[in-house]
Amino acid sequence: MFPTYDVIVVGAGHAGCEAAVAAANLGSRVLLVTMNMQTIAQMSCNPAMGGVGKGQIVREIDALGGYSGIVTDETMVQFRLLNRSKGPAMWSPRAQSDRMAFALNWREKLEAHPLIDFWQEMVVGVWVKDGRIAGVKTGLGMEIPGKAVVLTNGTFLNGIIHIGEKQLGGGRAGERASTGITAQLQELGFEAGRMKTGTPARLDGRTLDYSVMTEQPGDENPGRFSYTDTPPLVDQLPCHVTYTNLDVHETLREGFDRSPMFNGRIQGLGPRYCPSIEDKIDRFAGRDQHQLFVEPEGRNTCEIYVNGFSSSLPEDVQYKALRKVRGFENMKMFRPGYAIEYDFFQPTQLGPTLETRLVENLYFAGQINGTTGYEEAGCQGLIAGMNAALKVQERDPFVLLRSEAYIGVLIDDLINKGTEEPYRMFTSRAEYRILLRQDDADLRLTPMAQALGVRNMDGRGTRVQAKREGVAAIATELRAHSITPDQLNGYLESVGTAALKQGVKLDTVLARPGVTLEGLADTVPVLRDFLSPYDAETVNLAEVTLKYEGYIERERQAVEKMSRLEGIKLGRSFDYEQLTALSKEARQKLNKLKPVTIGQASRISGVSPADVSVLLVHLGR
Amino acid sequence: MFPTYDVIVVGAGHAGCEAAVAAANLGSRVLLVTMNMQTIAQMSCNPAMGGVGKGQIVREIDALGGYSGIVTDETMVQFRLLNRSKGPAMWSPRAQSDRMAFALNWREKLEAHPLIDFWQEMVVGVWVKDGRIAGVKTGLGMEIPGKAVVLTNGTFLNGIIHIGEKQLGGGRAGERASTGITAQLQELGFEAGRMKTGTPARLDGRTLDYSVMTEQPGDENPGRFSYTDTPPLVDQLPCHVTYTNLDVHETLREGFDRSPMFNGRIQGLGPRYCPSIEDKIDRFAGRDQHQLFVEPEGRNTCEIYVNGFSSSLPEDVQYKALRKVRGFENMKMFRPGYAIEYDFFQPTQLGPTLETRLVENLYFAGQINGTTGYEEAGCQGLIAGMNAALKVQERDPFVLLRSEAYIGVLIDDLINKGTEEPYRMFTSRAEYRILLRQDDADLRLTPMAQALGVRNMDGRGTRVQAKREGVAAIATELRAHSITPDQLNGYLESVGTAALKQGVKLDTVLARPGVTLEGLADTVPVLRDFLSPYDAETVNLAEVTLKYEGYIERERQAVEKMSRLEGIKLGRSFDYEQLTALSKEARQKLNKLKPVTIGQASRISGVSPADVSVLLVHLGR
Ligand SMILES: Cc1cc2nc3c(=O)[nH]c(=O)nc-3n(C[C@H](O)[C@H](O)[C@H](O)COP(=O)(O)OP(=O)(O)OC[C@H]3O[C@@H](n4cnc5c(N)ncnc54)[C@H](O)[C@@H]3O)c2cc1C
Ligand SMILES: Cc1cc2nc3c(=O)[nH]c(=O)nc-3n(C[C@H](O)[C@H](O)[C@H](O)COP(=O)(O)OP(=O)(O)OC[C@H]3O[C@@H](n4cnc5c(N)ncnc54)[C@H](O)[C@@H]3O)c2cc1C
Repeated sequence: MFPTYDVIVVGAGHAGCEAAVAAANLGSRVLLVTMNMQTIAQMSCNPAMGGVGKGQIVREIDALGGYSGIVTDETMVQFRLLNRSKGPAMWSPRAQSDRMAFALNWREKLEAHPLIDFWQEMVVGVWVKDGRIAGVKTGLGMEIPGKAVVLTNGTFLNGIIHIGEKQLGGGRAGERASTGITAQLQELGFEAGRMKTGTPARLDGRTLDYSVMTEQPGDENPGRFSYTDTPPLVDQLPCHVTYTNLDVHETLREGFDRSPMFNGRIQGLGPRYCPSIEDKIDRFAGRDQHQLFVEPEGRNTCEIYVNGFSSSLPEDVQYKALRKVRGFENMKMFRPGYAIEYDFFQPTQLGPTLETRLVENLYFAGQINGTTGYEEAGCQGLIAGMNAALKVQERDPFVLLRSEAYIGVLIDDLINKGTEEPYRMFTSRAEYRILLRQDDADLRLTPMAQALGVRNMDGRGTRVQAKREGVAAIATELRAHSITPDQLNGYLESVGTAALKQGVKLDTVLARPGVTLEGLADTVPVLRDFLSPYDAETVNLAEVTLKYEGYIERERQAVEKMSRLEGIKLGRSFDYEQLTALSKEARQKLNKLKPVTIGQASRISGVSPADVSVLLVHLGR
Repeated sequence: MFPTYDVIVVGAGHAGCEAAVAAANLGSRVLLVTMNMQTIAQMSCNPAMGGVGKGQIVREIDALGGYSGIVTDETMVQFRLLNRSKGPAMWSPRAQSDRMAFALNWREKLEAHPLIDFWQEMVVGVWVKDGRIAGVKTGLGMEIPGKAVVLTNGTFLNGIIHIGEKQLGGGRAGERASTGITAQLQELGFEAGRMKTGTPARLDGRTLDYSVMTEQPGDENPGRFSYTDTPPLVDQLPCHVTYTNLDVHETLREGFDRSPMFNGRIQGLGPRYCPSIEDKIDRFAGRDQHQLFVEPEGRNTCEIYVNGFSSSLPEDVQYKALRKVRGFENMKMFRPGYAIEYDFFQPTQLGPTLETRLVENLYFAGQINGTTGYEEAGCQGLIAGMNAALKVQERDPFVLLRSEAYIGVLIDDLINKGTEEPYRMFTSRAEYRILLRQDDADLRLTPMAQALGVRNMDGRGTRVQAKREGVAAIATELRAHSITPDQLNGYLESVGTAALKQGVKLDTVLARPGVTLEGLADTVPVLRDFLSPYDAETVNLAEVTLKYEGYIERERQAVEKMSRLEGIKLGRSFDYEQLTALSKEARQKLNKLKPVTIGQASRISGVSPADVSVLLVHLGR
């Protein structure tokens, strides 16, 4: 009944959707199997994409030909570039999404892909022959043949929803949990663990008093995620900010004895950096308020998401407490918040392509690997999907380094360090932040995708070329353009930097703090004329490149040093027990994790610089 | 946590949505509780509204201020007026809907209503105090107080999905079943039964060969359902027609031994007039083909609904058979068809307002009453919602007669005759078809809604007034306008009717078969001028009224005769056992069903004309 697919993707969340597209855009025939075709690309929790660390990932997904950025651009209701007051390494795009439109748009894009087929059903197990994937097995008892399988089950594996003392089976509110897969994988030798995450109540926006909250509008000139030609955002919706207070906290505390978090009913660890409101009150007992973001769920709905109020307290406690928040006095709830516990698989069981070590051609991506967040899921899907396709086509794997992309950092962290609590991205996880900026993910990554022959790049390649040339031309101009003190000193004074004593080139002035290319162009009309043919992204990148040239160069050198280690391959079948000069812990960890390169080995906790030297000596370097 | 609602509606299918709006538009505070707010107004089966008998109901819902017509108009992708070649009593509007857009549009309309609140959860029981509704109980253990409750659980009560030999619990593909309610109602004394219905496979439209099918376009001048000012339909999508063949039948037959229908696993009776394909093959063994309608699920999806191929055969059998249908040779499936079994409550347990006899202020509407179809569900929701609101406001009930609306026929049939198999509307169920046309449901019903004070009538009242006046003016003109033989004989000849010998009034010519108002206007320029200020609906109604004057009058008289009986009220507490002159069967049935009027009593099977006379004598008539 089914042909043999190149790649079968199980689950159509953010990981699954990107995986399907990535494999199909490398020419693989893909089947996307999901429990409910009406919940494709559903945002389970907050209706937002991007944010600090995460926005960079969406840009990277886009640069590699993924669709999350395009879908977000086409359906967002608000855009903000966060951290604009900090250095460009920290600038992070974030969009408020229309939840329904986002899901519909993704579905349309998937359906429009001639290489992607669909099947609506629950997968109950993988089909393995001789340690290698043969396909998947479904709830109706079908065996669907496939050469590679990507599992992206999200929070559905043996999912249990907790609200106060009540427990319900489910993968998400109102949806069934997925059973069978965990047990089967455990039999195959996989180690499963338990995690939890939570979501806040949804409120009736018609009952909130926005006049007492602080409005948080979108950016005046909203940017976008995709490097393709997505339409500019018009008609932004505002979010609002309000705060909890001691009264709210007191009310919540009254429910603590019925909290599944505090009475031990929930076993799995939750995301430390996305704590529930009860967690926040418990951990920061000294704080007398916590910020809440009041976010619209879409353009045509009054449903509101209360960012910052995730909770699994009993629904009456959530209700009573919410009603004491400023602006929520007459609030009505659509549904309470809840926590969900689910199975994940320690990602140290994966290689850098996200293929499992135990079953050939089986890939895991997304929340199943212990991560949290749409962006983290999406980028894993992309990498797993690409690599599944490449493997089936007997081509070289595609792996991103820590110095090349946040995606590289994320996967490297996961497979080497594993995670005990839901892993989310932070800029602080990257050692080369200034190289992993959101403004040039296209220059970093798009050429790689082109080299692999990724299809449907929608002009990204041409745009990269133009952007690169534009940046170079602007840099050349600034480096060549001399300027006299009397031309510029008025402006320099106005931004509080020392006056010039003699003529200099424009690039040296730009390097000063406070000086901007925009400011220079305002002062020097010929510069304005010179810049006018270039688009904002190009001009911005040129500015950043010149202003931060020194930092960028320094990080490049650090990367180079590291990459020498990164370039030294370790055999995957090598038995480290033989190398008695290694510490015992290093031997064990190395044997367990089988790093692919010395660089990777060096980042494993328990592998010391001394151990790295032993490895280098052993390899004759 | 909740205020005491006037009306709590359980379930947001077609019945639930109309019930919520109907109660709210009579000024009641409504809570709509549903398992999943993302499936509000989901079309469980075919993406279409209306059709023969059903289209009339949608028009009636609209005339009474319901929203199904508006939502359909705003989201349809094709419109056809069926049976145009038959008399106007048979003309039936039918729309092909965009499934997703339909649901979203309904949700937006509900959210826009200030008197409707929402709560997402499963209701597990009604809350009854002293034989009277006090509210509902939810899965989280909450008791939500309400003065009246409308249950509209659809196919969810103890739902079991069948595909071949497999059974899955569920209320609809991918959704949970609802448990608890049936058992509780049985304890309260209600009788529950079991029914089943089925749905066909969904196909990947990209894999079908439309070139070998017959295209079925929409009407050239598409009409609409609503009497309000909904936007005209542009950019219609075609449907397609293809056929099964003996090879398909043979293949299906191979699966009969694994069919839950034929091996007795399904107990409930299915809709006789919406049979599964296996049923059709079994029952009409002589037929060598069955028609299939290939219907798009929406504007932006390639998903296809195969109308006519509902099946619960094993999925591999469905697949193999479908692949043998002309145009489906390379077909890919998104999901197989399935049958669903669910609990219903014999509607003879209800009064004409759809209030239950056992529990005061508890109403049932929709599939829970043993009906099938969105339209049947929607109109019951409307009547239950209106009456729940009226009851809470201590106002008179609102009941439609069989001569006033298909809605009246439907409810009267249900509560008096009950049903053993899923009940759907047919024009043949109505005894006064010419009075229940789709072209004047507004004239029949809108004034009643206005008299009740239904809000948000969106100009329906004004339009009725204008239409009524327009029809009268046109009729007056035609009755007054003399015409000579030489003015008209050319036209009369062209439509094959006898030439005039002397001048006559236009209305007498119009009464002739074949003569149309359009044809007359083409021939008589002053008539064209006279008609030009009137809209198409008005002109059409004038034509129908004049052409069918005789029939209409005859039916009116029949109704009058009957309505004398209908006007004679019977006490609901009267004990018929006292009336020994009644037949035994009549006494039992009357005591069980407690009809409200003699008319209603006369339609109960087992109550003879002689029994009716006994009742009349007893009442002193
Ligand atoms: C209650 C809740 C709260 C959350 N809170 C946060 C938060 O605070 N911060 C944050 O960053 N992220 C949060 N998330 C996580 C975020 O939703 C996920 O990280 C992200 O959606 C993961 O994407 P995914 O693709 O891995 O899985 P999902 O989006 O969960 O998608 C899984 C998909 O797989 C399908 N599926 C599952 N099992 C099967 C099967 N056996 N057969 C077929 N199909 C199957 C499902 O139908 C679904 O389509 C939360 C999620 C939930 C549910
Ligand atoms: C598989 C299938 C095939 C069908 N085939 C046909 C056909 O061939 N022809 C035809 O005319 N009709 C068919 N129908 C029927 C048509 O879908 C229904 O008649 C119509 O949808 C009934 O409307 P309703 O409002 O009564 O219920 P539904 O549309 O079923 O809606 C029920 C609503 O109640 C909610 N709900 C249920 N229980 C609870 C609870 N305990 N608490 C809270 N919410 C609850 C559900 O979430 C849902 O929103 C089919 C339906 C199904 C499922």
